[in-house]
Amino acid sequence: MEQIKLGIIGVGNMGTTHVQNILAGKCPEIALAAVADRREARRQWAQGTVPETVQIFEEGSDLIKSGLCEAVLIAVPHYQHPVLAKEAFAQGLHVMCEKPAGVYTKAVREMNEAAKESGKVFGMMFNQRTNCVYRKMREMVQNGQLGELKRVNWIITDWYRTQIYYDSGDWRATWEGEGGGVLLNQCPHQLDLLQWICGLPKTVQAFCQEGKWHDIEVEDDVTAYLQFENGATGVFIPTTGDAPGTNRFEVTGTLGKLVCENDTLTFWKLSQDEREFCRTATEGFAQPPCEKLTVETDGENPQHVGVLNAFAGNILHGTPLVAEGYEGIRGLTLSNAMHLSSWLGRPVDIPFDEELFLSELNKRRASSRKKEGKDITFSTEGTY
Amino acid sequence: MEQIKLGIIGVGNMGTTHVQNILAGKCPEIALAAVADRREARRQWAQGTVPETVQIFEEGSDLIKSGLCEAVLIAVPHYQHPVLAKEAFAQGLHVMCEKPAGVYTKAVREMNEAAKESGKVFGMMFNQRTNCVYRKMREMVQNGQLGELKRVNWIITDWYRTQIYYDSGDWRATWEGEGGGVLLNQCPHQLDLLQWICGLPKTVQAFCQEGKWHDIEVEDDVTAYLQFENGATGVFIPTTGDAPGTNRFEVTGTLGKLVCENDTLTFWKLSQDEREFCRTATEGFAQPPCEKLTVETDGENPQHVGVLNAFAGNILHGTPLVAEGYEGIRGLTLSNAMHLSSWLGRPVDIPFDEELFLSELNKRRASSRKKEGKDITFSTEGTY
Repeated sequence: MEQIKLGIIGVGNMGTTHVQNILAGKCPEIALAAVADRREARRQWAQGTVPETVQIFEEGSDLIKSGLCEAVLIAVPHYQHPVLAKEAFAQGLHVMCEKPAGVYTKAVREMNEAAKESGKVFGMMFNQRTNCVYRKMREMVQNGQLGELKRVNWIITDWYRTQIYYDSGDWRATWEGEGGGVLLNQCPHQLDLLQWICGLPKTVQAFCQEGKWHDIEVEDDVTAYLQFENGATGVFIPTTGDAPGTNRFEVTGTLGKLVCENDTLTFWKLSQDEREFCRTATEGFAQPPCEKLTVETDGENPQHVGVLNAFAGNILHGTPLVAEGYEGIRGLTLSNAMHLSSWLGRPVDIPFDEELFLSELNKRRASSRKKEGKDITFSTEGTY
Repeated sequence: MEQIKLGIIGVGNMGTTHVQNILAGKCPEIALAAVADRREARRQWAQGTVPETVQIFEEGSDLIKSGLCEAVLIAVPHYQHPVLAKEAFAQGLHVMCEKPAGVYTKAVREMNEAAKESGKVFGMMFNQRTNCVYRKMREMVQNGQLGELKRVNWIITDWYRTQIYYDSGDWRATWEGEGGGVLLNQCPHQLDLLQWICGLPKTVQAFCQEGKWHDIEVEDDVTAYLQFENGATGVFIPTTGDAPGTNRFEVTGTLGKLVCENDTLTFWKLSQDEREFCRTATEGFAQPPCEKLTVETDGENPQHVGVLNAFAGNILHGTPLVAEGYEGIRGLTLSNAMHLSSWLGRPVDIPFDEELFLSELNKRRASSRKKEGKDITFSTEGTY
């Protein structure tokens, strides 16, 4: 079987999982060719883990230039995603990028342009798009089964993290090292799914609370209010401070309501469009007839392995990616708009002023606090 | 058995229900002595419904002055609540007032002062306080079982109303006639329960959409962001435009999470305070141990009949009311603060500037549109 030669840049929490999946034979069309990490402890881990044929680098740039790889998977702190991706495209490599696409849309826009110029395959690690319940939600919203969008409420407070999580790396949860908190580290999945399923809102007003539950300088609690072009509204409520949290994603349309909770999808299906019913009903307290259904899905949820296999498939056979790299900018747009809105204390329209966002971010980077990182690598199993 | 002689002012949707409950013998300590309504059709209905011993008035003021009643139940459009209550207190009558207490807190404050001066019994028709699940939630929050309050999310979108509901009375859903929409007509229950269970927030920022789903001038869709004194946050999301709606009330504290949905109360009980766990855990992705429990309640939910019987009991035997009339101002404070915030496009602190609220309301009353009311009375069974 033909295999693509993959280099993995960054073998911390997520990169380690990717290495293990490939070594376990879960990605038959991928051969691990090289890994890179700036931390000696992680290179030592790699030394003891990967076969001798796999080259170990300190710098991702050296891995990219080594000629050993046809493709790279970038799993380093977020600011470096566009930087390394551009280097890889310049070397004619295919790129799979961990989420988020970057920290600010301006850099991601440049990455997207570099990808386009290179003509190489560009994927984004939106592994939650492989989840059958979200795929089904997208299908039902996009094919009109829900009618016109009215309301989107996502309470996504089940990203619990302890203080030691934040203390585990000196880049974590700092403006300079990570560029944000729960919006940038934990929620890129949900921000992507939200726009993938419901589209991007046109205006957001967010209330980000920085260091609310943890000793960190970035946000760990957010409430955002969304307004869509057609008048639909919504809330997006993430935190890393609630235990046990909630993951309840509710989408209401003129033909019914879809709720995803505990990996179950429930559809309240109206037999008549609510807008028409409202106008024509002769009873004040009447409701359109409604049927409650548990939605069947295909049950497939291949997560990271599915994203990587689709990436290899796209390179080798032209079969579809799970998520085009170009789409990474959309969830980041939502995230940047939420930060900007909270910093300015006012609603922010999408598209927003990218220069203004960057200057506000840079103010925070300039006074970003230096942390003594403990440099701990955790198992990420079951956490994404 | 001793009975109090009650006059009911307003026999529209709710007043009719009260009359029927009393005539059906559900309130053994209450004798219906008189009813009043300005609409001839409702007086005719009363004529055909109540015994001959019950006097029928056109004006509530005349009923109050008639000497026939020891107590009145006020179930007229909201602006008239404080006006009639003050008249009743001045005549030495006890007062049960339908929710909301009034349209603006300034008038309600004056009503409360009149009540205090009179020394008469003053109750508010917060029938949802009789619901066993809400009583239990209050008990658990107030006695510390949830620990410190962290988050309150109430999605209360199951107040569906059709256009003909709004067309059914010329006062309905107008600034001049009703003084507000879903916040003032449907949600006084939830606004009261929210403050009763969790306390009043210190700041609100609300996004009220006026005439979004119906041809009306007041709000029928609201998203409000709440901040409490201790730093807890929340959202309150009511509408009359969603079918089927949701009623999901989630309260998270440092000792667990309580969710009330479909009249079931579920408690995720932590065995350790989350704040302590967060600081002391040695694992980044660990969570405090948690047990999921379905909370037992006493199953009692006597609603309006319970409120009326408690009112009679308080007058006759000094047993407690379901809700003191004085407390009506608290939910209205929340409602007024939400309107004001939305009108001004900024966060509003509680207590807010009552004069500013009234001047903003009066601007809207001045240009309030005249409606051709169809004057329909609906059965309210199962709608409150």
